[in-house]
Amino acid sequence: MDPCDLVEETLAAIAAYPDKALFIEVAAARARKEAAASRSRLRAGLPLSALDGVSMAWKDLFDVEGRVTTAGSVVLQSEPPAKRDAALLRAAVRAGLITIGLVNMSEFAYSSLGLNPHYGTPRNPRDPEIGRSPGGSSSGSAVAVAAGLAPLAIGTDSGGSIRIPASFNGVVGYKSSTGHYPMDGVFPLSRTLDSLGPLANTVEDCVLVDAALRGVPTPEARPAELHSLRIVVPETVVLDGCEAAVVANFETAITELARAGACVERRAMPQLAKAMELVAERGHLLGAEALQLHRKRLTGPDADRMDRRVVERMRLSEHMTAVDLDAVIQTRKRLITESNALIGEAIVAFPTTSRVAMPVAPLEADDGLFARENMQTVRNAMLGNFLDWCGVAIPNGVNENGMPTSLLLSAVHGRDMAVLSAALTVEAIIRAK
Amino acid sequence: MDPCDLVEETLAAIAAYPDKALFIEVAAARARKEAAASRSRLRAGLPLSALDGVSMAWKDLFDVEGRVTTAGSVVLQSEPPAKRDAALLRAAVRAGLITIGLVNMSEFAYSSLGLNPHYGTPRNPRDPEIGRSPGGSSSGSAVAVAAGLAPLAIGTDSGGSIRIPASFNGVVGYKSSTGHYPMDGVFPLSRTLDSLGPLANTVEDCVLVDAALRGVPTPEARPAELHSLRIVVPETVVLDGCEAAVVANFETAITELARAGACVERRAMPQLAKAMELVAERGHLLGAEALQLHRKRLTGPDADRMDRRVVERMRLSEHMTAVDLDAVIQTRKRLITESNALIGEAIVAFPTTSRVAMPVAPLEADDGLFARENMQTVRNAMLGNFLDWCGVAIPNGVNENGMPTSLLLSAVHGRDMAVLSAALTVEAIIRAK
Repeated sequence: MDPCDLVEETLAAIAAYPDKALFIEVAAARARKEAAASRSRLRAGLPLSALDGVSMAWKDLFDVEGRVTTAGSVVLQSEPPAKRDAALLRAAVRAGLITIGLVNMSEFAYSSLGLNPHYGTPRNPRDPEIGRSPGGSSSGSAVAVAAGLAPLAIGTDSGGSIRIPASFNGVVGYKSSTGHYPMDGVFPLSRTLDSLGPLANTVEDCVLVDAALRGVPTPEARPAELHSLRIVVPETVVLDGCEAAVVANFETAITELARAGACVERRAMPQLAKAMELVAERGHLLGAEALQLHRKRLTGPDADRMDRRVVERMRLSEHMTAVDLDAVIQTRKRLITESNALIGEAIVAFPTTSRVAMPVAPLEADDGLFARENMQTVRNAMLGNFLDWCGVAIPNGVNENGMPTSLLLSAVHGRDMAVLSAALTVEAIIRAK
Repeated sequence: MDPCDLVEETLAAIAAYPDKALFIEVAAARARKEAAASRSRLRAGLPLSALDGVSMAWKDLFDVEGRVTTAGSVVLQSEPPAKRDAALLRAAVRAGLITIGLVNMSEFAYSSLGLNPHYGTPRNPRDPEIGRSPGGSSSGSAVAVAAGLAPLAIGTDSGGSIRIPASFNGVVGYKSSTGHYPMDGVFPLSRTLDSLGPLANTVEDCVLVDAALRGVPTPEARPAELHSLRIVVPETVVLDGCEAAVVANFETAITELARAGACVERRAMPQLAKAMELVAERGHLLGAEALQLHRKRLTGPDADRMDRRVVERMRLSEHMTAVDLDAVIQTRKRLITESNALIGEAIVAFPTTSRVAMPVAPLEADDGLFARENMQTVRNAMLGNFLDWCGVAIPNGVNENGMPTSLLLSAVHGRDMAVLSAALTVEAIIRAK
């Protein structure tokens, strides 16, 4: 289909979409210009990539030339506009992708339920009756794909922020290894943990986006051979306190995979429990790094203009000492080494989130409930950030109310092609079921 | 000469040496056994390395199988003995080096003047009249070489602990890049900054030790061509407050090098000033990491059995916050990137210490004086640890009292062969002068 016609259809669908909290800014002029250029290339038979002419939504954490990046906040409005596109956006342009707009997110990417008091909380399109959480922090990226407004979106993930909204909205989310993509022009949250990746309808789409963004002509990730697929299911932490449907859908998927020929190994992974203990005793690396970046903001007048829940969560790290942080950093290194040795070339599998998307209203009414739900929601995905993994969240069914559950496949740092290859195979089996 | 005869001579010289604070333990039985094995190899014409049969003294921070590592303290005496030699000691054994004994150090490697209230402070052999500081923390390693009791010694360096005693005693000290040698079995001070290396009479000896310890048959470091040697002299921080003789000897050396054909470039290196400011404002990475390792010791009964100066210095980091430490870590990364770009393949040159070894008695009598002298002494060498450099300290003359001064050559992380090659050339020019 013609890229210009496609863009007009997309812009019309966005304009007609009732939830005005989804897009912070629709980039209509830019999208039309990029689509025209794409049309010329396609007519000449010279596409820049397999995705030339396809629309992509961006989390509003990525710099767009001439525009002030909001980071989901209102306190950056007096900052100067970006001098150039973020490095990843430049890569997307080089691949012919169309920049359709900037989507909503949790303020400063610092919570996992997607609430945003400044631009509104986008509602989860999987339940048109009850306004449910979109997940976060890449709330708009997941909703835009789930609602069919953009086939592709980019999110960031420092503690689950791609995989959690992917889980809540029933889409695929690929969190790359830290350093896999350039971070220039991305508003930071945690220098150590920040990573990014696409959200899409299928793993195949994520594979195509990855290849296009890295300028690789033919994707390296191919469906993994089932008989060479070794899946480790941790018996530690990740199934604790999960909803019945989350566990049931997870076990069904694992059973299917084993039946299809994958080697499934259930084993203790004490590093997961140790990571939880460490964070409870000493504090969060993510929290300390976020507070470091935002400390001036939190002691000035901007604090009153920020989401009180974000401010409160950031302030939790104020009493963390240097000794605590060093203990976290050093212990994290050791746990990464140990768990890498344990995992090797296997794929780790567990539920992406322990629960499905919950209604928004009670969360907005009760900060204590919000904090508890936030921590419980973030747990499984965040273990992957703590251990420096890459991962792919794949929809694996729905609960009794039709809300999606999600299977998270992870691999150790740098094994992005292996986890994408496994995800291609696993998705095919789950969908064929 | 026969290794067994050599070892007997060395043991006799150690026994006759009047300063009983130098060796914490003489490894006579082990040395004799190793010498006998070396003799057999040499007689068979099958030496393990160029240093087979040569004696080496070890800072008492390295595990020796069956022995409790003291780390210069008395509080570890109830710890279990080491189950095996430290990895580097095993490498030394594989190269045929003779383990002559364990030498004294600042307690827990945490000060630069070499005072030790538990095992005594080894006196600087360069001044037999006035008891002067041996430098630290590898005090015994430098004194053993300077006194002619061991041709080679191993030290560690997290904030100047090889290069400072090398400077004070007029010997050569090579601080390797972090990660250049294995740290297994070395009692830690700072997981990020800890490094180690040899002290010896000449750069050539350090080059031979490096090759032997790494199992490299022919040393890669060869004298650098003078006309390809680019030396950067920072105009920032490193010459501030230096003794007149330190500056004079440094300038003489630099003039000689330029005259001999090296390209000498004087330039501002603002990263050095920024590093000093950062540490003053936010605190020390070394301090935070040391406190993390020793925090239980400092809150228990062991604190009263430790050097009060070490306890006091470690406690300085108690009020450092996680946000401060994160700021230090992130800013350090940026300063390393910036200064690496500025330095490139050049060699950085400045005085190793801003002063010569000072008398011990006033330091022992006045903790305030000790703290000030310690900080001033450590400044130049520590900048190298902060910026993750490797370096070689080379004697470059004496002051009006005959006390040695020292020239420090540094290179960016991983350029160990380049800095050793430069040091071979520079030493030849300085000595020929």
